[in-house]
Amino acid sequence: MAKKKLRVGLIGATGYGGVGLIELLINHPYISIAALMAKQEIDKPISAIYPHLKGFCDLPVFDPADPKCPHDFDIVFYATPDGVGQKEARKWLNKGIKVIDYSGDFRFNDKDSYASYAARIGKPKEHADPDILHSSTYGLPELHREKIASSDLVGNPGCFAVSCILGIVPALKFGLIDSKDIIFDAKSGVSGAGKTPSPLFHFPARYEAVNAYKVTGHQHVYEIERELASLTDKEIKITFTPHVIPVSRGIIATIYANIATNVNMENLREAYGSMYSKEPFIRIFSHGEILSTTDVRGSNFCNILLTIDSRTGKLIVISVIDNLVKGQAGNALQNMNIMMQIEETTGLMYPGNFP
Amino acid sequence: MAKKKLRVGLIGATGYGGVGLIELLINHPYISIAALMAKQEIDKPISAIYPHLKGFCDLPVFDPADPKCPHDFDIVFYATPDGVGQKEARKWLNKGIKVIDYSGDFRFNDKDSYASYAARIGKPKEHADPDILHSSTYGLPELHREKIASSDLVGNPGCFAVSCILGIVPALKFGLIDSKDIIFDAKSGVSGAGKTPSPLFHFPARYEAVNAYKVTGHQHVYEIERELASLTDKEIKITFTPHVIPVSRGIIATIYANIATNVNMENLREAYGSMYSKEPFIRIFSHGEILSTTDVRGSNFCNILLTIDSRTGKLIVISVIDNLVKGQAGNALQNMNIMMQIEETTGLMYPGNFP
Amino acid sequence: MAKKKLRVGLIGATGYGGVGLIELLINHPYISIAALMAKQEIDKPISAIYPHLKGFCDLPVFDPADPKCPHDFDIVFYATPDGVGQKEARKWLNKGIKVIDYSGDFRFNDKDSYASYAARIGKPKEHADPDILHSSTYGLPELHREKIASSDLVGNPGCFAVSCILGIVPALKFGLIDSKDIIFDAKSGVSGAGKTPSPLFHFPARYEAVNAYKVTGHQHVYEIERELASLTDKEIKITFTPHVIPVSRGIIATIYANIATNVNMENLREAYGSMYSKEPFIRIFSHGEILSTTDVRGSNFCNILLTIDSRTGKLIVISVIDNLVKGQAGNALQNMNIMMQIEETTGLMYPGNFP
Amino acid sequence: MAKKKLRVGLIGATGYGGVGLIELLINHPYISIAALMAKQEIDKPISAIYPHLKGFCDLPVFDPADPKCPHDFDIVFYATPDGVGQKEARKWLNKGIKVIDYSGDFRFNDKDSYASYAARIGKPKEHADPDILHSSTYGLPELHREKIASSDLVGNPGCFAVSCILGIVPALKFGLIDSKDIIFDAKSGVSGAGKTPSPLFHFPARYEAVNAYKVTGHQHVYEIERELASLTDKEIKITFTPHVIPVSRGIIATIYANIATNVNMENLREAYGSMYSKEPFIRIFSHGEILSTTDVRGSNFCNILLTIDSRTGKLIVISVIDNLVKGQAGNALQNMNIMMQIEETTGLMYPGNFP
Repeated sequence: MAKKKLRVGLIGATGYGGVGLIELLINHPYISIAALMAKQEIDKPISAIYPHLKGFCDLPVFDPADPKCPHDFDIVFYATPDGVGQKEARKWLNKGIKVIDYSGDFRFNDKDSYASYAARIGKPKEHADPDILHSSTYGLPELHREKIASSDLVGNPGCFAVSCILGIVPALKFGLIDSKDIIFDAKSGVSGAGKTPSPLFHFPARYEAVNAYKVTGHQHVYEIERELASLTDKEIKITFTPHVIPVSRGIIATIYANIATNVNMENLREAYGSMYSKEPFIRIFSHGEILSTTDVRGSNFCNILLTIDSRTGKLIVISVIDNLVKGQAGNALQNMNIMMQIEETTGLMYPGNFP
Repeated sequence: MAKKKLRVGLIGATGYGGVGLIELLINHPYISIAALMAKQEIDKPISAIYPHLKGFCDLPVFDPADPKCPHDFDIVFYATPDGVGQKEARKWLNKGIKVIDYSGDFRFNDKDSYASYAARIGKPKEHADPDILHSSTYGLPELHREKIASSDLVGNPGCFAVSCILGIVPALKFGLIDSKDIIFDAKSGVSGAGKTPSPLFHFPARYEAVNAYKVTGHQHVYEIERELASLTDKEIKITFTPHVIPVSRGIIATIYANIATNVNMENLREAYGSMYSKEPFIRIFSHGEILSTTDVRGSNFCNILLTIDSRTGKLIVISVIDNLVKGQAGNALQNMNIMMQIEETTGLMYPGNFP
Repeated sequence: MAKKKLRVGLIGATGYGGVGLIELLINHPYISIAALMAKQEIDKPISAIYPHLKGFCDLPVFDPADPKCPHDFDIVFYATPDGVGQKEARKWLNKGIKVIDYSGDFRFNDKDSYASYAARIGKPKEHADPDILHSSTYGLPELHREKIASSDLVGNPGCFAVSCILGIVPALKFGLIDSKDIIFDAKSGVSGAGKTPSPLFHFPARYEAVNAYKVTGHQHVYEIERELASLTDKEIKITFTPHVIPVSRGIIATIYANIATNVNMENLREAYGSMYSKEPFIRIFSHGEILSTTDVRGSNFCNILLTIDSRTGKLIVISVIDNLVKGQAGNALQNMNIMMQIEETTGLMYPGNFP
Repeated sequence: MAKKKLRVGLIGATGYGGVGLIELLINHPYISIAALMAKQEIDKPISAIYPHLKGFCDLPVFDPADPKCPHDFDIVFYATPDGVGQKEARKWLNKGIKVIDYSGDFRFNDKDSYASYAARIGKPKEHADPDILHSSTYGLPELHREKIASSDLVGNPGCFAVSCILGIVPALKFGLIDSKDIIFDAKSGVSGAGKTPSPLFHFPARYEAVNAYKVTGHQHVYEIERELASLTDKEIKITFTPHVIPVSRGIIATIYANIATNVNMENLREAYGSMYSKEPFIRIFSHGEILSTTDVRGSNFCNILLTIDSRTGKLIVISVIDNLVKGQAGNALQNMNIMMQIEETTGLMYPGNFP
């Protein structure tokens, strides 16, 4: 285990993804935050932007282009929107500094897959550094732990994707459901939309408002389909409908699939158990229990509940995460631990607060 | 149009369904509230229980068994839980007084259907007055307006059922979807659970909590299946998952169905238009628009949005209501207007407040 | 009573103050909305901006400078920020069209008072049309009903000011409290900050956040002090602390004053009764009752509760309004009714919805 | 520092005060939870009641009277309502086991003070073990750290009292304000009312509702007055108005006092600095900054902001805490650390999560 603390650089420190990582790094025993960087609120102490950090982390926010900004890191996090990390990752990698990116920039391994994704989010289809894509790893530890451990460049998954993929993978992998007709009805808290104010997320307009959005057109569809397809020999087309709910944190994905012939709850429990019983951040629940987003708020856990609707032959899975922890900063830190050969759960074993 | 105001009796006046009706009746031009009745908070003015009514309605709450309680009504509303109205409806009907019941007591026309429903909600399977069931009408005006107009006994629909049925009926009636594999993922505000405090609806436990409940087992499934089956010659089995979201009012139902061969958006718009273009309380929206629960909060409208997911061949319908208005008191008043030959929209044309 | 409907022009139609007035005007029997005007979202139907209005009011939004915009009004509302109405009011008045302005532009009768106020809100101290100030009336009907009735130009009060002034005026007017040391601790819902998104009112940042702001420096202090001073022969300096609470609507002002020697609750009830017992929109409550913001949500009422803390000799008054109704659009409509010799409560007798 | 982990017993484990302590104890390096006790939900694992604890703490809930319940503790917490700890504390103390009680049972040092308090909360005025009161310590570390360190019996303060006392003590102690006429206008989140459902805290009734309650009659007045009086040679009578706001966590106390002659901000900053600059859990802010309840949510900090209203000669202090942490479980753990000669901040240095 490292004696000397690892030096972390954080780009995009002032957004929700950045502050979420800072909250975790503060109490991580093997880490030192070496520099906070952002394009906004330069030179302010981070604790002047987020007063809850006062006394815990009072580092200034550097413009990443500022020559005075430290750059001797062991690992760099890009808690930035799409399009930032792809332009800069190679610079760090060339210096032997590992990179974890929160956006879609490194979730795809070839330029064509990236182009499909980029078209959906209105970005240029051309990746800024397509040759680097082949060396990047999709950072979902439950599926790609070993590859992450040997990787220098990790694309942290989308928050919806984490809840959806973890919820259905064992059923699909073990052939317990029809790979067609999988439906993901996902509901997310507002923090998933980030820190920038907008009319749809203005408090008075939002406080009692629930709505679906990007119906048939959300960009997380691609990474979900890619991950699911890799488990079977078939192309997968999913139906995915995201909703915004007036809470700050939490994703609950309700997943519907047609159960294969003669499959019963016992088979399902075995499949999920075989994949997840040793996973440190997955907890399985049974029909009759109630899974709430508040059960994982502030924690890195994914809670999963399995039900069979015997009247209609459907598997119904409820999968719940905190979109800012397992769906973002917590999962990124889990990746960092793996990449740095630190015990995977270090700095992540918090239950959250209730109520 | 009635010169003399119709006299209304309201049983269950102190619950959310009761107070919602009082709010509407206050400004209804042809109605006089003749008596408020409940089993709790007897003798208090209703405005001592609900201070927003002070000066608008200060009538006392009577025990229905109190001989001093007026009983010369033209129509009686049972805003009561299952099991109350079925024991008493005949008494009023025998005196020529019409009855509208909010519960499941009169949503089914035969004792066997009722028994299936009652088993689900943990009530005695035996209806208290089975012979009366044949004369009751399911009170969804958009489907049964004429029957309601000639009926003396109406069972007001369940709130989830209103949003689900209205959302899918035209597609099913005109054969635009496969009648199998219809999935209703429904999200409701907390007021749908009524006025009685409970741990799951205690503010601190609920304020950030979203959860599914009664997965595969909600009682509204029966009336939805019955109404849908009546439009086709097939048995219908639906998948229905209710969720509770931390808002007070609003239901958003996201409905998934497999679209029939060669059906396109034009066909769908024609079908919904032919059924709903003259409906006073249904508004149709198009793909790309956003439907929010706040668009119908405090109003008697059902907003419906149609989308085709061409990648997966799914019809996705979003259907939104206020569970306490179109899902309860407003729909009940709409039924009353129809039964009493009053213009159907009287006392109901409010847009609600935003934000 | 007017046979021909009065024609209303509304400038600033797309803000919360505008839409709140539209909601009320829709069902006002003697009014026709002649034109909606704003500087944003020109040419859109108002119901495309606020979908709850669809079918109720689908008028387009005009640029006020558009020559096609109707301008034959009986009365014009400026639901606009400070600085707009003062430049244009004279134009309408010269044509015999009455004007009600929501902002501070016409709350002060002389240029010096206005200058003090304007300095506080960061506006040019010079009023754009100072000569017109002398003819304007402060639009608080409970204090200035007769003057409003004969006025062509009314400055609608600030939302905090309405709750604070109505809460303390009788005690001060009848000499029941010391005119020094009056403290107003006021809490407002977020809609009071208007429709424009900002970091402080972004849903995730606001949903659990309560804070004081503009401590010692809120601009409503001036109109409160002016109104209170006019009831006594002394200068009044008040302490006023506004807070933002994470609800959409509602102001609760908790008011503290030193009670005068030998004054008791009986004296207080007499004073408040003599001023308010015939007021259509004020309701008085007693110690032991609980006043909640939800008791007036969506209604034009001000609820007031009186308590004496005999241990400390303090009068404590709780005064509650809906900031968007009695604190804005509802009070403005009340002014319009008075100015137009329409029964004052017309179009305003709604209890709101609970829950 | 202890090698062997201290064994903690927790009575009242299933309430909010209990679960809040468990959340902290889980990651406390020198503590082992030896037994959870409650009167409800006996034999259930605590993680079946609070699923976020699953995997962190799955201990069963014992009836304290169950002979199988462990009782070899180093310290016992009573996270129970008034009246429980006073009957049992002596039993533990006699065995050399220290006791911290959350309720008012041990906040007063003599039976008469207790009787005044008890009358206010509707409890029998007679303390169950009056002789023990003299040895109890009021557990506010910032005022009584040394006494707590040598005490075996500590009464943890009321949540409102923590925010009010910490906010005003330096001003009073250094004679910077008039000791008369101090007003505390306090606003609390709903979790302060505990876990038991009730009509006032039912989600639909509460979600937009703000109200004052117990106006002039809240029981925390006594401990505030006692602590303040001990700093001066005068009797202190305060005005205190609690409000409930629809958030889960957080207290914001707005405190008004008349500033003494010639006192300025410099004097105030010196006074607060001299008392608090070395306090690990107090942070001082300046006029112009904004203090929000979310800045301390989930953390043990008290944030304090000082303002002088020079127009009216008032000191305005804003004091903010998390009612369940510094106002309850966190402060209790701070007391435990002090009593057990563990570094005071152990297990408490968390910034909380934002948003």
